[in-house]
Amino acid sequence: MLLSKIYEPIREDLVKVEDSLRTISKVDFPRLSEMLDYSLSVSGKSIRPALTLLSGRFYDYNLDYLKPMAVAVELMHMATLVHDDAIDKSLVRRGKPTINSIWGGEKAILLGDYLFARAGEFANDTQNLQVERLFTQTLGTISNGELRQSFGAFNLEQTREGYLQRISYKTASLFSLATESGAILSQAPEKSIQNLKDYGYNLGIAFQIVDDILDFIGTEEEMGKPIGSDLAQGILTLPSMLLLERYPEDNPVRRLFHNEDKEGNIGLAIEMVRNSSIVAECYGVASDYCVRACRNLNLLPDNDSRQALIRLTDYITKRKR
Amino acid sequence: MLLSKIYEPIREDLVKVEDSLRTISKVDFPRLSEMLDYSLSVSGKSIRPALTLLSGRFYDYNLDYLKPMAVAVELMHMATLVHDDAIDKSLVRRGKPTINSIWGGEKAILLGDYLFARAGEFANDTQNLQVERLFTQTLGTISNGELRQSFGAFNLEQTREGYLQRISYKTASLFSLATESGAILSQAPEKSIQNLKDYGYNLGIAFQIVDDILDFIGTEEEMGKPIGSDLAQGILTLPSMLLLERYPEDNPVRRLFHNEDKEGNIGLAIEMVRNSSIVAECYGVASDYCVRACRNLNLLPDNDSRQALIRLTDYITKRKR
Repeated sequence: MLLSKIYEPIREDLVKVEDSLRTISKVDFPRLSEMLDYSLSVSGKSIRPALTLLSGRFYDYNLDYLKPMAVAVELMHMATLVHDDAIDKSLVRRGKPTINSIWGGEKAILLGDYLFARAGEFANDTQNLQVERLFTQTLGTISNGELRQSFGAFNLEQTREGYLQRISYKTASLFSLATESGAILSQAPEKSIQNLKDYGYNLGIAFQIVDDILDFIGTEEEMGKPIGSDLAQGILTLPSMLLLERYPEDNPVRRLFHNEDKEGNIGLAIEMVRNSSIVAECYGVASDYCVRACRNLNLLPDNDSRQALIRLTDYITKRKR
Repeated sequence: MLLSKIYEPIREDLVKVEDSLRTISKVDFPRLSEMLDYSLSVSGKSIRPALTLLSGRFYDYNLDYLKPMAVAVELMHMATLVHDDAIDKSLVRRGKPTINSIWGGEKAILLGDYLFARAGEFANDTQNLQVERLFTQTLGTISNGELRQSFGAFNLEQTREGYLQRISYKTASLFSLATESGAILSQAPEKSIQNLKDYGYNLGIAFQIVDDILDFIGTEEEMGKPIGSDLAQGILTLPSMLLLERYPEDNPVRRLFHNEDKEGNIGLAIEMVRNSSIVAECYGVASDYCVRACRNLNLLPDNDSRQALIRLTDYITKRKR
């Protein structure tokens, strides 16, 4: 199913979110304006802002507050990508050169900081102290998760629990911020806020697991970035962890992490994962989280947003990019 | 005059701010905890949190709100320093190795992000949407100023107005956030809020000009970092701008920016600035801003905080580090 079809209930409002996003490049410094325009031109799937809007449609849907929050979560996402690429020295993202590859890592750090600030301003527009608090806490959680990933690089001794905690911090936290804030800003009852928060969390975990699978089985063209990039950065994800479990002794991941024939071993690891049941097993884990996400929606009013959120779990497992 | 003497009216409360600051290193990830403890151990002059507390003592002094805000401005300051050092690849700050020199630039980016997040959380503790808005806007202003500085590196065509705008963005904005928020959180009348904001702005400009002078006339021991670091980064400041004005043709700064004999030309530029009236002229400009800062205090109630703020203008011009 196409994303545009899933987004149908919020189609017009998502356009308003995008219009609002574009206003950030109106600044008093042309070089900054240019970097912002470029960042905005490399558009993603808008999943996070869509989640905020969809989550806000179960009770009192008020776009005055939901729109700025949707912009805030998308800007926070953009900011973290800019910093991630600067950290990883990635050259391509979404099929286009990264900020750091065009303007250098130094300016990428500052642009990311600027985006965090603007994100905070939009979060402030919600006029809701609780949502603002969740917003800034989420930035802390994401940075904590990224630090865990960075400190864990090239370390073979990692548990599946450690992996799940890491992706819950670095990815699921922003998904659950998107859904929880949508619920809070639409005056949802406590129980529904918790349900939508949990939905976001479970969807976020599934999303990241699929991302980690696609880094093995995707194509560079579809993904818009090189395949095997996690392994190249020394990052263990679910597929490579399962590969290590199955071949504990002689393993390309182990050799790679010991700095032997980087390219050859990445290629071999990708081949081995592709030609094994690891992919299916990983999709199974992702699907489990999607089932949980759908279950979180059970007690919510049955409207087109609920259908869209259910379809989204299907979309993110089947996506190719 | 010693800073501790100036801080006398808020001595006990500044200790509470420091106690509160130290709580940030209680986190669920030991490696992060270690980085935070280290950052906290490299203590500065606490000027920004002191400004918040002092500015809050003219009307309704309420530490429940002023303390978290003081922590927030100090954490924002720490975060920007961590990112600045990562950007400049600086090895030493305040006489101690920088975060990036110990843990690498990648982790410094993430630690800075984490500190921004925690700063935002403390700003949220003020329970004041207006202050929170100023807080996030200031982060945007600082990043904008740093980007201006970065884009202007090794560019000889810069005006004094451009310099003043740059330092107003990157430095004075945080000083005026510190004073303005202190005023707002103590229920000061509009006029006094504006006066304290302006005081912070003028003090901040003076502070940065003196910083830029000390990068020429200070000693590495006093400054806790190498002298001439601005020129080494290709950054023009007031002293080097005046040097360029006085010797438009044959000038070590010009040669340096054209990549000729870096070390020799930095040394020569420092010598020329030291042996000229440029230093006195720069101090004159800084003093003018201090006079304005003091004038901003004219209409405020005359108490020991007002005296402290006046003395602070004197301290920052006479400081050696």
